[in-house]
Amino acid sequence: MATLTEAPPDRPQAATRRLGQGTVRFMLPPRIVAGFALVGPMEGRGPMAGYMDATLEDTYYGERCWERTESKMLKEAVQHAIARAGLGEGDVDVTLTTDLLNQCVSSSFAMRSLTVPHVGIFCACAGFAGGMALAAALVDAGFARRAVVGASSHHDAAERQYRFPTELGVQRPPTAQWTVTGAGAVVIADGDTSGPIQVTHATFGRVWDLGLKDPYDMGSAMVPAAADTLLRHLRDTGRAVDAYDWILTGDLGRVGSRIFIDWMKDRHGIDLDGRHSDCGVLIYDPSRQDVHSGGSGLGASACVVSGYLVKAMSRGLVNRVLLIGTGSLHSPTTHFQGESIPTVAHAVSLERPGAR
Amino acid sequence: MATLTEAPPDRPQAATRRLGQGTVRFMLPPRIVAGFALVGPMEGRGPMAGYMDATLEDTYYGERCWERTESKMLKEAVQHAIARAGLGEGDVDVTLTTDLLNQCVSSSFAMRSLTVPHVGIFCACAGFAGGMALAAALVDAGFARRAVVGASSHHDAAERQYRFPTELGVQRPPTAQWTVTGAGAVVIADGDTSGPIQVTHATFGRVWDLGLKDPYDMGSAMVPAAADTLLRHLRDTGRAVDAYDWILTGDLGRVGSRIFIDWMKDRHGIDLDGRHSDCGVLIYDPSRQDVHSGGSGLGASACVVSGYLVKAMSRGLVNRVLLIGTGSLHSPTTHFQGESIPTVAHAVSLERPGAR
Repeated sequence: MATLTEAPPDRPQAATRRLGQGTVRFMLPPRIVAGFALVGPMEGRGPMAGYMDATLEDTYYGERCWERTESKMLKEAVQHAIARAGLGEGDVDVTLTTDLLNQCVSSSFAMRSLTVPHVGIFCACAGFAGGMALAAALVDAGFARRAVVGASSHHDAAERQYRFPTELGVQRPPTAQWTVTGAGAVVIADGDTSGPIQVTHATFGRVWDLGLKDPYDMGSAMVPAAADTLLRHLRDTGRAVDAYDWILTGDLGRVGSRIFIDWMKDRHGIDLDGRHSDCGVLIYDPSRQDVHSGGSGLGASACVVSGYLVKAMSRGLVNRVLLIGTGSLHSPTTHFQGESIPTVAHAVSLERPGAR
Repeated sequence: MATLTEAPPDRPQAATRRLGQGTVRFMLPPRIVAGFALVGPMEGRGPMAGYMDATLEDTYYGERCWERTESKMLKEAVQHAIARAGLGEGDVDVTLTTDLLNQCVSSSFAMRSLTVPHVGIFCACAGFAGGMALAAALVDAGFARRAVVGASSHHDAAERQYRFPTELGVQRPPTAQWTVTGAGAVVIADGDTSGPIQVTHATFGRVWDLGLKDPYDMGSAMVPAAADTLLRHLRDTGRAVDAYDWILTGDLGRVGSRIFIDWMKDRHGIDLDGRHSDCGVLIYDPSRQDVHSGGSGLGASACVVSGYLVKAMSRGLVNRVLLIGTGSLHSPTTHFQGESIPTVAHAVSLERPGAR
């Protein structure tokens, strides 16, 4: 046994923060104290529009290319979230951001305008939930007083990177999802702070790949990862699904959501019965917006949480949500090389203080 | 003030884990208990060869494309590191891995063969140090008993993604760095464990961009980020540079390292005087290997730490190292769009238990 150089060990606490492999609980649940969501024009006409904090007039937002637009959106979401929390950049110890562009350039370019330490993460669309889990861990343990989590996606930037130039007007199959143009950020502060949402638990996902290869049906590919994370979360926390008002995935889309509900019921006897929703499904109105299987992209979960949930939970409309971010971890290169799609899902429990 | 749902607060501890904005210390410093480094044929002929754990015979390693090779290398580095620690996959609570390929596919595809929860990070070549900082935080606070950090790069996969098809044989300027083919992984365990390296502190970096645009001179672009992180680390920890045997950057290369040493001395009066080295410089022999400014890529810092440092510190050859991972956060797309190169640097203190 080697010599210790620092303060004495904190074993009693350590024993209770880890509930299982990859499932943690926070001792003094960190609070989401502010959120800010900025969406594109199309998302600004969807059912969530009233909860969004700003809507772009066009998809460029004064920039000459969409990659810059996305980065600007993320920068502003982070800056506005910090300001809304009544804080300055010096009050935030770390930012964790993520996006879908190669080398996560929306994140990095956004963060060069800030003076806050920054760690980039990449878990595809599971990144916002994954980032919240890491940020809450850093805050709960006292490594940071406050952390900001942000994420973005832009339909046109994603489309030309992952699929085809948008100008080409390629037809999309019914299982395809529509990448959301949106950026959202939340400020996570010390559990002593007053704020509308507590982050109480998190479950980090394992990488699943059942061999599906169709990038136009990512919802189906991500179901096993979402199911595994939900099952592990329930087992490790000792909770039943009715501990949550909502099991909120992001983003399985319409097709993936239906498979997820059947999968949970048929394979595991768990009835999600009106309790499940999906960020990608919530953000567009299928009767008016032609998005096939629904939305996808980090903008969906980032904006539903930062824009909608922060307000809805603050008003007591929702009490307990398990957010399960789901990500497809392929790239166009791996697709062309004939590979299937690995997927991951990270979960965080978001609870209204004193709700039960 | 809202109701608390969980155990009582742990404020005394929280007050001491955060030393400043983005600088943390670990209460019971987590241990690196095992490492494994796997390198390509060229790196296997460099000065670090004797410390590497395996060397590929060719750059394909039985795969039909380099992207698959890289992913296989990372998977094996992680698996061997776990085995060398005498553990199984069930004993590891989370893996944090990173690489340079679009959508971090080396990481994700590697992790689909494991059953361990996984979070992907992306900070370019700062990712291995950043991952170690996050992993140590999760372990120190008791969210995980053990975490694995892994990273990889592959010269040929990186070259064709970032620059030109390797077959084209494009000439490279003297400031260019050579992407290392290598994968390394370390197992970070609870501070109660016996192991050759303690992770005692970390400083998360801020994103710096002084307007440099040349992707063939990333070393120079990353100097301000490295300097800022080192200065913040010294200020927040109250340490002088002589607290460390080595300030080990990864990877400024030869050109960037010289600028870094001058920058620290001329601007800040800090003499790194024989105390600085760089993972990219250490890994090749310039008299025999034509790599211009030295190595780069996550393989460099991952293999120098997982292969060399773990053994060197275990044998008492080195006592205290500040690893400063440095990353260029651009993409080919942002370069073509005329953008400059944002950069970041994350630092972790690695100390031999009982060394002082």
